[in-house]
Amino acid sequence: MTIKIALLGAGTVGSQVARLLKEESELLSARAGAPLELVGISVSNIDAERDPWIDRDLLTTDSTALIEKADIVIELIGGVDLPRKLVLHALRSGKSVVTGNKALLAEHGPEIYDLAKEKNVDVYYEAAVAGAVPVVYAVRESLAGDTVRAIQGILNGTTNYILDEMTTKGLAFEDVLKVAQDLGYAEADPTADVDGHDAAAKIAILASLAFHKRVHIDDVHVEGIRSITAEDIAAATTGGYVIKLIATATQDDTGKIDVRVNPTLVPEAHPLASIGGSFNAVVIEAEAADRLMFYGRGAGGAPTASAVLSDVVAAAAKRVVGGRAPQEIVLGESEFVSADDSCSKYFIRMKVKDHVGVLAELTRYFADAGVSISSVHQEEIAADGDVSLTVTTHSARAADVAATIDSINQAQTAEVVRVLRVGDE
Amino acid sequence: MTIKIALLGAGTVGSQVARLLKEESELLSARAGAPLELVGISVSNIDAERDPWIDRDLLTTDSTALIEKADIVIELIGGVDLPRKLVLHALRSGKSVVTGNKALLAEHGPEIYDLAKEKNVDVYYEAAVAGAVPVVYAVRESLAGDTVRAIQGILNGTTNYILDEMTTKGLAFEDVLKVAQDLGYAEADPTADVDGHDAAAKIAILASLAFHKRVHIDDVHVEGIRSITAEDIAAATTGGYVIKLIATATQDDTGKIDVRVNPTLVPEAHPLASIGGSFNAVVIEAEAADRLMFYGRGAGGAPTASAVLSDVVAAAAKRVVGGRAPQEIVLGESEFVSADDSCSKYFIRMKVKDHVGVLAELTRYFADAGVSISSVHQEEIAADGDVSLTVTTHSARAADVAATIDSINQAQTAEVVRVLRVGDE
Repeated sequence: MTIKIALLGAGTVGSQVARLLKEESELLSARAGAPLELVGISVSNIDAERDPWIDRDLLTTDSTALIEKADIVIELIGGVDLPRKLVLHALRSGKSVVTGNKALLAEHGPEIYDLAKEKNVDVYYEAAVAGAVPVVYAVRESLAGDTVRAIQGILNGTTNYILDEMTTKGLAFEDVLKVAQDLGYAEADPTADVDGHDAAAKIAILASLAFHKRVHIDDVHVEGIRSITAEDIAAATTGGYVIKLIATATQDDTGKIDVRVNPTLVPEAHPLASIGGSFNAVVIEAEAADRLMFYGRGAGGAPTASAVLSDVVAAAAKRVVGGRAPQEIVLGESEFVSADDSCSKYFIRMKVKDHVGVLAELTRYFADAGVSISSVHQEEIAADGDVSLTVTTHSARAADVAATIDSINQAQTAEVVRVLRVGDE
Repeated sequence: MTIKIALLGAGTVGSQVARLLKEESELLSARAGAPLELVGISVSNIDAERDPWIDRDLLTTDSTALIEKADIVIELIGGVDLPRKLVLHALRSGKSVVTGNKALLAEHGPEIYDLAKEKNVDVYYEAAVAGAVPVVYAVRESLAGDTVRAIQGILNGTTNYILDEMTTKGLAFEDVLKVAQDLGYAEADPTADVDGHDAAAKIAILASLAFHKRVHIDDVHVEGIRSITAEDIAAATTGGYVIKLIATATQDDTGKIDVRVNPTLVPEAHPLASIGGSFNAVVIEAEAADRLMFYGRGAGGAPTASAVLSDVVAAAAKRVVGGRAPQEIVLGESEFVSADDSCSKYFIRMKVKDHVGVLAELTRYFADAGVSISSVHQEEIAADGDVSLTVTTHSARAADVAATIDSINQAQTAEVVRVLRVGDE
């Protein structure tokens, strides 16, 4: 019994998948319990240049015909519409599907999972979140005996690299982005990364698995890093924080979910603070397990291919021994914390004319809105004699913080320059 | 269809397993795909005091009869002989087994795995290594598409706590051990922890899974932390290192395995250097995935129970949908690197009478044995006018380092106080 594999897409990840399937054929087959055979690779341009290990005889432009020949279909095309069509076709034909397509799952997951269930086949997607880091498994299976309270992650390497460079070199966002694009670390169109959509898709997938409720990418509150300035980072550093693009998913005691992506001030001692460059890391807080952290390469051809192939081995083993793999389970309707009720500590940076009594006036606006201040830091700005004032709050409702800022702005007591969330210890 | 569960042992972990099975019954059953029912708890003393959630009607002293009533048997007794007897009995009767018993698996794993295979049932043991940290899964399944090169871990919380306290407070081993015993962090008989046997059992289990070769606890080179002094730690700190009890498993290009537990100098920037207190952490280097790190609570009732229950859910789901879980696979005879050939960087601390030319003489002994020096640090010891000299080597064979030290001792050029391994960056 040979397990036939169709590979859709031969980009950075797909090409590495093809290489490992060839080079590690014996080991992978032993683990799967049956020989694995790559029966074809579908590509959009059959004449394009390819890595030397790509067997040109396997190339085809006819994805649908290729799917028919396979037991397992690996979808690594990118985009949403075509992959959706092909994945649904594969499932309908009784094939197991392995995909690394976070956008597809965060937008059309339920349709795909439901069809897989109906057809009694499996969908695997370890590679869709945090590359080689087995965090999909962690929330779906390794914590199957536990209750996840919160997930916090650095899920996008590009933004982590940019913020890192801004922090260590004091550079502006645009300058670092340009260098990152030149080095190939950032796409020509960096929107999905820098505006947080990539991280949003990933945290939506994790939240669905962790809380057993469906979370669509549109349910995620997203804020990117474009507006972060070198001054924000300097102020954060002074306060003992590092600014990271943090994706979070939390469930409160009433079952309400809050899923978001925000540039966040992470306390320097927090394990996520030291995650540098293009690495990804996920911290999971569970009731019995307490805090778990997973860390590794979140992108790149070979690391992502490693995750794809672990899914291929699992899918192949299932074909051999039977049964269905553990899947997402929906245990209730998703109820979300409203944008107003979302709670966090906040870091508010203001510019004030240094006049007597301003601090008393400002703190009154916070108190009036029910926002409790945890610390205040004041620093003279050499250039214009203004004073830079940063206020860190205790956990507060977003609406109360917004009301505070409205009051401050209306009274023209100070100019609010930046409002950022602060992560827990 | 109800899945019947027998719990053998109601100690710290067993009691938490019973609690979670009761409190999270609905969630666990939903994930397993069938109701889970705890049908009995076997204990040695039925009249002993128990946690309030333990249902006394479930208690029995007859483990064998209890096993007969169950689909899944959870073994959390401790020790080796009785658990071995009961686990083999359970497998022979066609039950799935979940165990957290590292000593049992590191000594009798092959007998257990072979019987499970013969009887077409599963053995799960996520809880046997690093508590709640899903590292058994990581090497068995999440890296099934990859080739593991090396595993490095802090796998024993007690020794990590002791070394931590020695480092931060400058205390002696015996003093910290006594406090740890008083606080309940260390056993009255601390041998298994401080002499490295507990970590050795765990790394043997991981090495077997990662390299697909059987590794017995006796195949592990073990060195504990009893001999580590405050001076060793001070010297390590000066050199930019932290002393940790590190368990390692590596496979070289010829397929030879080196599995060991050593107090090791970890460079301060290495992710394992910052793992404090009773946490466990494992760093895995794989060919495609590159470096992965897993971190969390390695012991304690609730965290370990979390791992046990994830295995219970997996075992129950298998009972529902059929098939066998991924298991250890043996792909060849184990060949080990000899103790002489085992390579590492070394840190050698000596006391020398400060006389002219001693450094030239010492370095000649290193060169003669083929050991390359990477750095030398010299410091006067206030008390007696002697000089403390530390030499850090490049990677060298253990036998060559031993020969160097023999030469130094024979010539009485210096007194070698300590030889420790140094971890890679």
